Amino acid sequence: MIIDSHSHVMLPVEKQIELMNEAGIDKTILFYTSIHPERATDFQSYEKEMRKLFKILGGHVNDAKGREKGIEEQLQSIRLYPDRFLGFGSVPNGLNDEKTAEWVEKQVIGNGFKGLGEFTLAPGQINTLEPVFKSSCEFGYLPIWVHTLHPLGLSDIKELAELAKKYAKVPVIFGHLGGLNWLDTIKITKEISNAYLDVSAFYTTVALSLAMLELPERTLFSSDSPYGDPLLVRMAVERHSNDPYTRKCVLGDNIAKLLNL
Amino acid sequence: MIIDSHSHVMLPVEKQIELMNEAGIDKTILFYTSIHPERATDFQSYEKEMRKLFKILGGHVNDAKGREKGIEEQLQSIRLYPDRFLGFGSVPNGLNDEKTAEWVEKQVIGNGFKGLGEFTLAPGQINTLEPVFKSSCEFGYLPIWVHTLHPLGLSDIKELAELAKKYAKVPVIFGHLGGLNWLDTIKITKEISNAYLDVSAFYTTVALSLAMLELPERTLFSSDSPYGDPLLVRMAVERHSNDPYTRKCVLGDNIAKLLNL
Repeated sequence: MIIDSHSHVMLPVEKQIELMNEAGIDKTILFYTSIHPERATDFQSYEKEMRKLFKILGGHVNDAKGREKGIEEQLQSIRLYPDRFLGFGSVPNGLNDEKTAEWVEKQVIGNGFKGLGEFTLAPGQINTLEPVFKSSCEFGYLPIWVHTLHPLGLSDIKELAELAKKYAKVPVIFGHLGGLNWLDTIKITKEISNAYLDVSAFYTTVALSLAMLELPERTLFSSDSPYGDPLLVRMAVERHSNDPYTRKCVLGDNIAKLLNL
Repeated sequence: MIIDSHSHVMLPVEKQIELMNEAGIDKTILFYTSIHPERATDFQSYEKEMRKLFKILGGHVNDAKGREKGIEEQLQSIRLYPDRFLGFGSVPNGLNDEKTAEWVEKQVIGNGFKGLGEFTLAPGQINTLEPVFKSSCEFGYLPIWVHTLHPLGLSDIKELAELAKKYAKVPVIFGHLGGLNWLDTIKITKEISNAYLDVSAFYTTVALSLAMLELPERTLFSSDSPYGDPLLVRMAVERHSNDPYTRKCVLGDNIAKLLNL
């Protein structure tokens, strides 16, 4: 089974299904979004969406209304295509242990989501994820998906690695391979058996090759669409993996095992 | 004609020709290199090459011997396949006006190279390129290729834009689209008619789409191989450009016009 392990909700949903069909993707793990660059048509509309994204990625936004609307869109897509979509559930950052657990129970478990994230934090804030790790343990070790590309740096990635070591039964997905810090991220995660590498947004195929070479059973194919192209990322995995076993693991088996699909 | 406007020398040369043939690339503009990740086979050898690369990209290396050997390899590939390869000539940074002009005359013009670069500078050092801009003017406005991905930041990109404005007849190629700063880089270069965008190392297809939308006649297809995959980058350009005219410009016509091919 070919599984795109990280994409955002695209509108209209039929367009996303078309992209999946074209790339031969059986299932996509959907993450909510409050912005839709796929609907932009000119520089002004692209810029508006992307500046909003950069603010979110910088950890500067905690937009409850945007989240609510985004989760509704996410559930709508899943309801329309329950065989093609699963979801990860967003969790607001900065709640205490109790409030986080309440949220996870109601908004994540309650909605049938399979994991927690995406978390987009400002640099130096990784430790604020501890309540989320505790909730993960409480609800059966839900995988946690963290954006580790810019603006996060190597010190943030190291802090996330420490949290992963402390909560050794919680699967932690290092989103976007650590970005510019991909070499160190591969080296660090190799030693942590509950750490996983998400390949989306790689900017060099050397990073992709090396991740699959070093962590064949913990590297996850994903397109991060609408920011990436599912067909091209699938082809990249196929062309830059060394053997059929690795290819099969990365394209679907690893995430299927992680989510008990 | 399909032209990969920026790739490094790969060894053996037959492997590079095979990749070009597979991607339907007629000509590749070769840049010298002192490292060869395409020959790495395991983590240790990859890491060794990549750490060397990161030092070079950080502007921390001025390796005269490595440059000499690299240029010899570059000339060797061009001599073997003169119909398939052209070259840009490396210029040491930090020489004065006179020494830079001497180098360009002997090592660039003398070797039949068509442009100057790649320049990999430490942050804050863009202004040290001024002697290179002066030499470009002296020798018929040779295009200058500057790495603008990390470790360079937006302030460096703005300084490069100022230099491009000051030397308005010198074509300046903003390598790798400005990296993380792609949105600002597109916005800045759009207003400078002698500024060009190199698409290699894009980490989101939104950046690629937008570059081609905004600067159809000044965006240049390149793979930056061995760090990128020529076939996948060509497909990305084809899939994310809006019309056949833009596609043809980006895939070859723009660089052909720039180099009078």
